[in-house]
Amino acid sequence: MEFQSMSKQELSELYKNLMAKYQNYQDQHLNLNMARGKPSTAQLDLSMEMLDLLNSKSNMKASSGEDCRNYGVADGLPEMRNLFADLLGMDDHNIIIGGNSSLNMMFDAISCCMTHGFQGCKPWSQQGHLKFLCPSPGYDRHFAITEYFGFELISIPMLSTGPDMDEVEKWVSSDPTVKGIWCVPKYSNPTGITYSDETVRRFAALKPAADDFHIFWDNAYCVHDLTDTPDHLLNLWLECRKLNSVDLPVFFASTSKITFPGAGVAAIAASEKNLEVFRKHFSYQTIGPDKLNQLRHIAFLKDVEHVKLHMKKHRAILQPKFEAVEAAFDRELSGKGIADWTHPNGGYFISLNVMEGCAKEVVSLCKRAGVILTNAGATFPYGKDPEDTNIRVAPSFPPIEELKTAADLLCLCVQIAACSKLLKSK
Amino acid sequence: MEFQSMSKQELSELYKNLMAKYQNYQDQHLNLNMARGKPSTAQLDLSMEMLDLLNSKSNMKASSGEDCRNYGVADGLPEMRNLFADLLGMDDHNIIIGGNSSLNMMFDAISCCMTHGFQGCKPWSQQGHLKFLCPSPGYDRHFAITEYFGFELISIPMLSTGPDMDEVEKWVSSDPTVKGIWCVPKYSNPTGITYSDETVRRFAALKPAADDFHIFWDNAYCVHDLTDTPDHLLNLWLECRKLNSVDLPVFFASTSKITFPGAGVAAIAASEKNLEVFRKHFSYQTIGPDKLNQLRHIAFLKDVEHVKLHMKKHRAILQPKFEAVEAAFDRELSGKGIADWTHPNGGYFISLNVMEGCAKEVVSLCKRAGVILTNAGATFPYGKDPEDTNIRVAPSFPPIEELKTAADLLCLCVQIAACSKLLKSK
Repeated sequence: MEFQSMSKQELSELYKNLMAKYQNYQDQHLNLNMARGKPSTAQLDLSMEMLDLLNSKSNMKASSGEDCRNYGVADGLPEMRNLFADLLGMDDHNIIIGGNSSLNMMFDAISCCMTHGFQGCKPWSQQGHLKFLCPSPGYDRHFAITEYFGFELISIPMLSTGPDMDEVEKWVSSDPTVKGIWCVPKYSNPTGITYSDETVRRFAALKPAADDFHIFWDNAYCVHDLTDTPDHLLNLWLECRKLNSVDLPVFFASTSKITFPGAGVAAIAASEKNLEVFRKHFSYQTIGPDKLNQLRHIAFLKDVEHVKLHMKKHRAILQPKFEAVEAAFDRELSGKGIADWTHPNGGYFISLNVMEGCAKEVVSLCKRAGVILTNAGATFPYGKDPEDTNIRVAPSFPPIEELKTAADLLCLCVQIAACSKLLKSK
Repeated sequence: MEFQSMSKQELSELYKNLMAKYQNYQDQHLNLNMARGKPSTAQLDLSMEMLDLLNSKSNMKASSGEDCRNYGVADGLPEMRNLFADLLGMDDHNIIIGGNSSLNMMFDAISCCMTHGFQGCKPWSQQGHLKFLCPSPGYDRHFAITEYFGFELISIPMLSTGPDMDEVEKWVSSDPTVKGIWCVPKYSNPTGITYSDETVRRFAALKPAADDFHIFWDNAYCVHDLTDTPDHLLNLWLECRKLNSVDLPVFFASTSKITFPGAGVAAIAASEKNLEVFRKHFSYQTIGPDKLNQLRHIAFLKDVEHVKLHMKKHRAILQPKFEAVEAAFDRELSGKGIADWTHPNGGYFISLNVMEGCAKEVVSLCKRAGVILTNAGATFPYGKDPEDTNIRVAPSFPPIEELKTAADLLCLCVQIAACSKLLKSK
């Protein structure tokens, strides 16, 4: 029965029942975490063999001849560049390998544009008030980087096809102070949707008012499928090549959720012209990335086909968790008119929309019963969800039994918050 | 006999003889490199065991409980912080661990000050024309970072006691646009000298005109002794504590020349107040450094005592190389009034001063005979040695037999250039 059709008395009765159940949860003194998209221990165990593949008996030479233990090879090992090129559908020479964090490379790319002019443009730090487009709900750490650098964050609605491209085109083509847009194009964080072909084509066809506008294309979940019917993302790079707009996008990827989040390998990819700017920046910043970790990863991951086989093992662990959360939502929340949620075919998140004005209360209720969720609002610029409705659910980290408990509690809290809100309005 | 006391005829004769020898070298088609301070293959082999110490059977937990394979632990593992604290003579809580490159941390620290105000000061990028002090000869990559960020580089003479502190004090106390100074205080790059106690005390006692002035103290060679009478560097941190000037210095170190240059662990160290600024910056930049490489290093290096034992093995390889170069210099160049050179007790370089106006010619002569040296001028701001006299000699990389050949050729070229110059002036 829809909550909104209930009488005040029915709601009061329901609220009492729900609170009794909530009390039961509180008595259990839970300590669970569905806050961040962290792989579970079982997933981390999948890559342990990698640590044995580089040992004191191994060949330390890159195929290009350099001793990987020493300084040098700033762009990364040829095999590593080739692997990322294949993952991203680009060419080897468009790839620069970094350290263990693609977020770090995004930060450095923004920082580079702040202090140094991009392709003859003034440094962003000397251009006055600037804006960055933030499809929302989106990835909090993306938004945080541009907030830290003083950008005004412009919220762009996320649709089931990706960012609202009418809005994106309007901003990008008319406002030269708009310098970029954050995108997680496949299994988007947190909605789990993949940008439609039309969305990708419209990105490639953007005509920015600013000469130094870039699409920050964070392909974090490029091989992170969870079903037999995975999403397909149109290759932005190829679309840009068709339209001679190859300088628009900058691509990012990493093995953080393929091997180890704390000790993976990251990459940036872009046109020759864009890479020239970043390569110069990096040449002052470092004598080169950790090539032994690259050797280790090449020995373990080999090529795209092996990566895909490896990702099936991740899927075997992750899929039941996503299904458990969705099953709880279906069972406890459907037909009540108080929530909707996404059904991603991959990635790390389910996006839950609760009754308007209730997200903070739901997160707070969960916390008081020992389950940590991502802060309500975190998926919006400045951490402020204008409708206080979105909650990012990260099913990956807890063991499945704990996850089921956490999901049940979450469903209970969604109902309590809705019930409480409706009661107040009666 | 001193070249300058020779007659024109004697010089002509000498020049002919020297050029005949040079021709012999050219006929050998050498391909040797004394350009960069890279450890040799034999040195890299010393740390191969480390790769076996972290394997699929290892405990992946930090002593603080976190799974080192996953995200998190932004400041680094407690044991790693403790090791760097002991290496630098500081406290654990003053240390933040980074990735594989201390140069990267220096770059990021400068970049942080450029885009974000330091302790309430305006960001450097908004303060107009700024200056950075560069004790010269010094480390080219230090100078390059500040040149890249648009600083005017002020050359400060290097004495046998460290930078000329009269000059440093004059600049720092009178000019608020002077924002920092680059220092390699122990076994300085390239002169190999260690700052005297008085120099360190005068650094601690600096009274900068700028509120956001910092001493960039790159202690790259803190345990890199090469003799039984190693230099002792007074602890700047403790001197600053005595004088309540702990916010002046920022310290850097790494294991690049302890384990692997391409895959070591770096650290930044500073007062709580300074670390707050950098920690905030890093918190947007990355979810954390590679903790598996930290685990690996802790397992191998254990503590300062073990590091020192390990460094003795490096010394056993490096010391004969330094001795071979110095022996060649003594044999071929002493008493001729055309060169002097340093006698470092540690580090990676010997600094050779040839006859004024001859350094470029010497490097060029060596190159044409197949021996690559660091570019003449590289050790000065903007790559310009005003007297064209300094050459940085890096004996570490070539095997000793090749090194002897290279050193002999270098001595020959020093004589040819001097002879040629004197002939022109006759």
